[in-house]
Amino acid sequence: MPELTHFKDGSPHMVDVSNKPSTTRTATAEAIITLPPEARAALEAGGVGKGDPLMVAQLAGIIGAKQTSALIPLCHPVPLSSVDVLVRLEEAGVIVTATARTSAQTGVEMEALTAVSIASLTVYDMLKAASKGIEITRVRLLEKTGGKSGDYRAQPLPHD
Amino acid sequence: MPELTHFKDGSPHMVDVSNKPSTTRTATAEAIITLPPEARAALEAGGVGKGDPLMVAQLAGIIGAKQTSALIPLCHPVPLSSVDVLVRLEEAGVIVTATARTSAQTGVEMEALTAVSIASLTVYDMLKAASKGIEITRVRLLEKTGGKSGDYRAQPLPHD
Amino acid sequence: MPELTHFKDGSPHMVDVSNKPSTTRTATAEAIITLPPEARAALEAGGVGKGDPLMVAQLAGIIGAKQTSALIPLCHPVPLSSVDVLVRLEEAGVIVTATARTSAQTGVEMEALTAVSIASLTVYDMLKAASKGIEITRVRLLEKTGGKSGDYRAQPLPHD
Amino acid sequence: MPELTHFKDGSPHMVDVSNKPSTTRTATAEAIITLPPEARAALEAGGVGKGDPLMVAQLAGIIGAKQTSALIPLCHPVPLSSVDVLVRLEEAGVIVTATARTSAQTGVEMEALTAVSIASLTVYDMLKAASKGIEITRVRLLEKTGGKSGDYRAQPLPHD
Amino acid sequence: MPELTHFKDGSPHMVDVSNKPSTTRTATAEAIITLPPEARAALEAGGVGKGDPLMVAQLAGIIGAKQTSALIPLCHPVPLSSVDVLVRLEEAGVIVTATARTSAQTGVEMEALTAVSIASLTVYDMLKAASKGIEITRVRLLEKTGGKSGDYRAQPLPHD
Amino acid sequence: MPELTHFKDGSPHMVDVSNKPSTTRTATAEAIITLPPEARAALEAGGVGKGDPLMVAQLAGIIGAKQTSALIPLCHPVPLSSVDVLVRLEEAGVIVTATARTSAQTGVEMEALTAVSIASLTVYDMLKAASKGIEITRVRLLEKTGGKSGDYRAQPLPHD
Repeated sequence: MPELTHFKDGSPHMVDVSNKPSTTRTATAEAIITLPPEARAALEAGGVGKGDPLMVAQLAGIIGAKQTSALIPLCHPVPLSSVDVLVRLEEAGVIVTATARTSAQTGVEMEALTAVSIASLTVYDMLKAASKGIEITRVRLLEKTGGKSGDYRAQPLPHD
Repeated sequence: MPELTHFKDGSPHMVDVSNKPSTTRTATAEAIITLPPEARAALEAGGVGKGDPLMVAQLAGIIGAKQTSALIPLCHPVPLSSVDVLVRLEEAGVIVTATARTSAQTGVEMEALTAVSIASLTVYDMLKAASKGIEITRVRLLEKTGGKSGDYRAQPLPHD
Repeated sequence: MPELTHFKDGSPHMVDVSNKPSTTRTATAEAIITLPPEARAALEAGGVGKGDPLMVAQLAGIIGAKQTSALIPLCHPVPLSSVDVLVRLEEAGVIVTATARTSAQTGVEMEALTAVSIASLTVYDMLKAASKGIEITRVRLLEKTGGKSGDYRAQPLPHD
Repeated sequence: MPELTHFKDGSPHMVDVSNKPSTTRTATAEAIITLPPEARAALEAGGVGKGDPLMVAQLAGIIGAKQTSALIPLCHPVPLSSVDVLVRLEEAGVIVTATARTSAQTGVEMEALTAVSIASLTVYDMLKAASKGIEITRVRLLEKTGGKSGDYRAQPLPHD
Repeated sequence: MPELTHFKDGSPHMVDVSNKPSTTRTATAEAIITLPPEARAALEAGGVGKGDPLMVAQLAGIIGAKQTSALIPLCHPVPLSSVDVLVRLEEAGVIVTATARTSAQTGVEMEALTAVSIASLTVYDMLKAASKGIEITRVRLLEKTGGKSGDYRAQPLPHD
Repeated sequence: MPELTHFKDGSPHMVDVSNKPSTTRTATAEAIITLPPEARAALEAGGVGKGDPLMVAQLAGIIGAKQTSALIPLCHPVPLSSVDVLVRLEEAGVIVTATARTSAQTGVEMEALTAVSIASLTVYDMLKAASKGIEITRVRLLEKTGGKSGDYRAQPLPHD
């Protein structure tokens, strides 16, 4: 029977992980930003060839990953051992992927998902003057390793 | 010709708004969280009737909106005069909407979008033990008012 | 009939202050930290004559006041125009007072109360090795001016 | 002879814990919020039956606990393994308790005390429109376990 | 007679600016990062031609400027209307300049100086594996406009 | 051949340290703040004898050290086991030194350098009303121990 582990006797709480072993864990998340033509044109005109606008988003994602436990109320603080964020322009739109790694008592899915969300919002911010029809979509976990619940790998999308 | 206003001479910068008038502005954003059956069952079993799990997400969205300029690198700090975040379970999934208001020299689209993103990540966090197939999707601007670029209202979706 | 203004239709929200005028507002709060003899002795031995340990608490209170809207979920960000925190050792214990001022659409009671709370916690932290029986008590609003609800002044305590 | 361990040669510093073993530690703190009749009536009218206003405070306490080392100047960052905050309405007022756990080189008393303080300030914020005579009182350590100084348990109060 | 305006009756405080008019103010600051040969070589090999490593520092400076009042204890929060940070490699080393603008009751010298300091630390971080002899030097105010103390322009350095 | 370890395939990333052993590491950094006569006079008149203004800077440095990974984009979060910041007035100006210690997979040079930078900016802030010609200079690493790259000790300066 599924349950909400973040609630105990009807109250939200930060789950006790003190009895879990500290193990190596990774998580990779993805988001797709769909671009109306004006937004794509602005991105292409604005230097995506040089990589700079997309690099602003990569950095925002890395910085955001480190703020995960301050942003998600019931999330544990985790000592991240690495964060990689990639942001690239493809036919389907801007594809954002983020991988977080740690050695800790809890996983880093939320860190990877926060990284792609903040990176995506940053892309949106840079393009919002060109179009208001941008969408951040399909924010999801692609893969995780480590932890009691075992490894996971999402079904690939057509664009993969 | 569209351009990236956040770049000047090839460098990212925070756009100068000192000559813009301070006016009333609002923005409403939305996200949809699609739920595999196990996630929906966990949410329903876990007290969504009482509203509590969804209220955790509402609060996270409100708190997150206030962190927008710290999270989005080129975003201005804005004195928010209100934030409303609604999170409700519907057939299509969990629907998150957020409205931000200010009287400022720049708009609050990013505050509304950050609120729905952080609220959505919080829903994800509470449900991730039940299913890894949850997706945050269709994060988009629904409506904005005020500012030089005028008012905007998105096309409704079938679920609206 | 009293009501919870932070709730609308059963959901918590940040109250809309966009139609309120921006006016000058001040608030003064107080806390008393009661000290078991060992804690008082440690404070006196540790340099309270020079003022230093109490100054650590004053600074923590000032810094804390600036974090109020990030700490109190439904609190508006307010541009503080000044913060004064006083921390002094008296017979009743350590007395902490804080005054915050702003010109804004909402008051600064929470800023003053947050300042005395963080300053008090900092005093506690410095003395906790000496005694575990310290208490932070009577955290309350002493006075406020400005705003629609008018001025307020608390009843003095015996120690005043 | 008691001393201020946070001062060395007259300067404040963050105590060196690098030679202390990492052990399991817990701390529980409490605060009592005394309510004038109008504040109690507002809380009861505002949905305390549903638990929502008190849940806002619980979440604020959990989030605040994670900010402890950023708020208390000489406090070490600690990887919290869990935080529980309970907020309940009783005859004596609103009773807030918080328990923090970690496996670290230093204790979590300040995390538990910060959690109850921020939760209490949040209750105050929600009720301050109803009454300005609310007080946050008796913020104290109820219990700690682990660490070189050993276990501690406070004397119960009449309300316990 | 000079005085420390941040102290009143021997206590640090945030100066009261509530009676000062809100006016347009700008400040420009500079820092020079001197590079041992290995650090310069790493920077040149690492893509400074593409601008990327220096752009990481620019962004860090912009983000850091927005954190100024949280970092400098007695500094007022200021609604920045723009921030520009430039980081370029010259013969003297890496030259960092930052300009902040606001319309406020207090100036933005600290915002500009914080921006160059954080940008410089970020350059240091990226190059520290190549050399430990890097220095951040000559962090100073180049120019300010607005405010009661009037305009200021520093003497140019040989490298200007 | 030197390289930028913070870049991989042209993208900035947080370097993976998951395979490095957790070892004891220390770093000491220094900065010198040169003071025009008016600034020195203000500092001496303002209570440097009592130590207070310099203590404000010491505290800001300690607090700033704990924010290092939030300020420097590609820096890892590190559990600091101690931070000492000293700020003293000498003939050459105000000398700031900071020592950080940890047991972690990565070093604490950036924590020590951030501490001296934030402490120096705080000194600047307190003295800027007296003189605009203050400079923060020679921000550099004095010494580090631990880690794969081994120990390091800088050449002493004339003032040492």
